[in-house]
Amino acid sequence: MKTTAVFYHAGCPVCVSAERTVATALDPERYDVRIVHLCENASEIANAEAAGVQSVPALVLHGEPFHINFGASLADVKKG
Amino acid sequence: MKTTAVFYHAGCPVCVSAERTVATALDPERYDVRIVHLCENASEIANAEAAGVQSVPALVLHGEPFHINFGASLADVKKG
Repeated sequence: MKTTAVFYHAGCPVCVSAERTVATALDPERYDVRIVHLCENASEIANAEAAGVQSVPALVLHGEPFHINFGASLADVKKG
Repeated sequence: MKTTAVFYHAGCPVCVSAERTVATALDPERYDVRIVHLCENASEIANAEAAGVQSVPALVLHGEPFHINFGASLADVKKG
């Protein structure tokens, strides 16, 4: 059974780079990668926070948040 | 042809968690993941630095460093 991996980002260059490499490098046999742009889907911010995401880009795998480099804090994303 | 992905770590709990999830989540069809423990292989520190790694755990994919969460700075790893 596949696991959903969620990649949260905010569209910044750091995020785009992480999306192009890390998010697409995951094993497609095991992971369905869902890409969530938090600026375009503000309603997802609460889910990101609940998963422990503090900054973007971040990958949530098996319920654990992995912050990849640093694009922006979630606080700044909330300000829009 | 497979790409080598290098996962640098220093044995701390943050590193172990990232290794167990992110490093093992990569597509084995496309990536050969090499795990490098910098405390046990100090000679690899120069390679990590050359790749732009500033802290561990970090994953170097296609020559680009991706710092995953924060375990320790490379400066601290150097101090041993």
